[in-house]
Amino acid sequence: MSTSIAHRASAPGSILAVGGAEDKVKKRGILQRFVKEAGGKRGRIAILPTASSIPDERAAFYKEVFAGLGVEDTVHVPIVTRRDAQLNANAEALLGCTGVFLTGGDQQRLVTVLSETKAFEAIRAGLVAGGVVAGTSAGASAFSSTMIIGGHQGLNTRRDAVKLGEGLGIITRLIIDQHFSQRDRLGRLLTAIAQEPARLGVGIDEDTAIVYFGNGQIEVIGTGQVFIVDGARAAAKGLEGSPRTKQFTLSGVVLHVLTEGDRFNVVSREMLLPGEEPDDVKVE
Amino acid sequence: MSTSIAHRASAPGSILAVGGAEDKVKKRGILQRFVKEAGGKRGRIAILPTASSIPDERAAFYKEVFAGLGVEDTVHVPIVTRRDAQLNANAEALLGCTGVFLTGGDQQRLVTVLSETKAFEAIRAGLVAGGVVAGTSAGASAFSSTMIIGGHQGLNTRRDAVKLGEGLGIITRLIIDQHFSQRDRLGRLLTAIAQEPARLGVGIDEDTAIVYFGNGQIEVIGTGQVFIVDGARAAAKGLEGSPRTKQFTLSGVVLHVLTEGDRFNVVSREMLLPGEEPDDVKVE
Repeated sequence: MSTSIAHRASAPGSILAVGGAEDKVKKRGILQRFVKEAGGKRGRIAILPTASSIPDERAAFYKEVFAGLGVEDTVHVPIVTRRDAQLNANAEALLGCTGVFLTGGDQQRLVTVLSETKAFEAIRAGLVAGGVVAGTSAGASAFSSTMIIGGHQGLNTRRDAVKLGEGLGIITRLIIDQHFSQRDRLGRLLTAIAQEPARLGVGIDEDTAIVYFGNGQIEVIGTGQVFIVDGARAAAKGLEGSPRTKQFTLSGVVLHVLTEGDRFNVVSREMLLPGEEPDDVKVE
Repeated sequence: MSTSIAHRASAPGSILAVGGAEDKVKKRGILQRFVKEAGGKRGRIAILPTASSIPDERAAFYKEVFAGLGVEDTVHVPIVTRRDAQLNANAEALLGCTGVFLTGGDQQRLVTVLSETKAFEAIRAGLVAGGVVAGTSAGASAFSSTMIIGGHQGLNTRRDAVKLGEGLGIITRLIIDQHFSQRDRLGRLLTAIAQEPARLGVGIDEDTAIVYFGNGQIEVIGTGQVFIVDGARAAAKGLEGSPRTKQFTLSGVVLHVLTEGDRFNVVSREMLLPGEEPDDVKVE
């Protein structure tokens, strides 16, 4: 029934970073899109609940959700420890799927368990082979190379507004944040970008996602908004040397507030106008 | 004791737009600055509680606050109706002061009562003569020409996120918002600027203020931050024609997050670096 990614064309795959709380019972636009990218109802979806503190329940829950979308061929890949992530059986299960879904939970747990393991290499191989990887909430944050672990709410920029750590590095150019406007997280994303201006900050609302393609193009889907923070030309003042609790100046950030259907090129750092096709730039 | 503004040098005056909830009992940095701009302890301060629903109490309260800062010569100018605002006695009382303080309350009430009256002309004349005018909360909003009357909280841009109306027009280039990060108001300021990209959006935190000089320079004072939103090069999509509740795209806004001591030139729309002096451009 299913087509494993190893058998698909070698076009680079897509990554869905979901801002959490995606609709699972009504229109389910984001999950529908994930299923479509994974080959539709005939796809095989791996559910990876590693970030969750209740992984078995979480996997069972998403199994039902995907069944509701017509995908019967789902595999719970039971990776909870690094030992699990090094098991050939689990890596092979991931390789045999057309889509991988990383649940929410704790992004640090996810990265600690998964980074530089056989399971992780299987996910990467799947992407190269044209598969799709989706992560929601903590799963989305973990795609970053510099990852947001936690922080304060609000608009203000202060060094202690964000706690950064090492992520999986699946999308190195972006620092991804989630539950974005719902949890009022612009200040912490600005603070992250002030420290790493070469990366783009991407804040994703609940029930909203970016679809990230191999050519560096982002597409926005879902009912909320995506906030892109570009600090390449910004000047920070008071970031270094002052107490971590002190607000600092950040001047000249470029902000893009995007809605469903918008496309953005992370290489040129510009929104694409309707009809405009991005250059076929390979960014990762 | 006091020096009336009519007797002061004709250098253009300064305007203090305060984000509300300024410290009135401890360091009182913003009110200290206002007093200094008004000529110090020997100044004469007019208290204009027109925006307030309890004007007499409000005026009495600020009288005590200024007394605590050493200014004994304060005048409650009892303007509650447009009729009051046309009385020569009130206009003359304003003209006789070195500083005017507009309290918080309802910015629409303030503008309805004050606009194009003798009292308003007296405030303008005072500024031309080198006096200082301060407004806190509603009083700060009212300085704008296009004024924010109300709106929704949050980061999202949607047409109904902000309600705009006509302000006093004392600072035509800026759309001022207050209680900014405390009430999570970036979405409404972005929405305002999307509709009026020629103006700069200025969101002022509580216990924070901008000092606006005749030469188009802003100085930030206080314990919070000031958010400047520049939409001159931004592109909006979905702003017109769609339902007012629908989120719209706003791409390419330049954002400046400023802290105490920062200076910004509203003509060049750039932060001034330390030691850099702005050109002596007259903007109003």
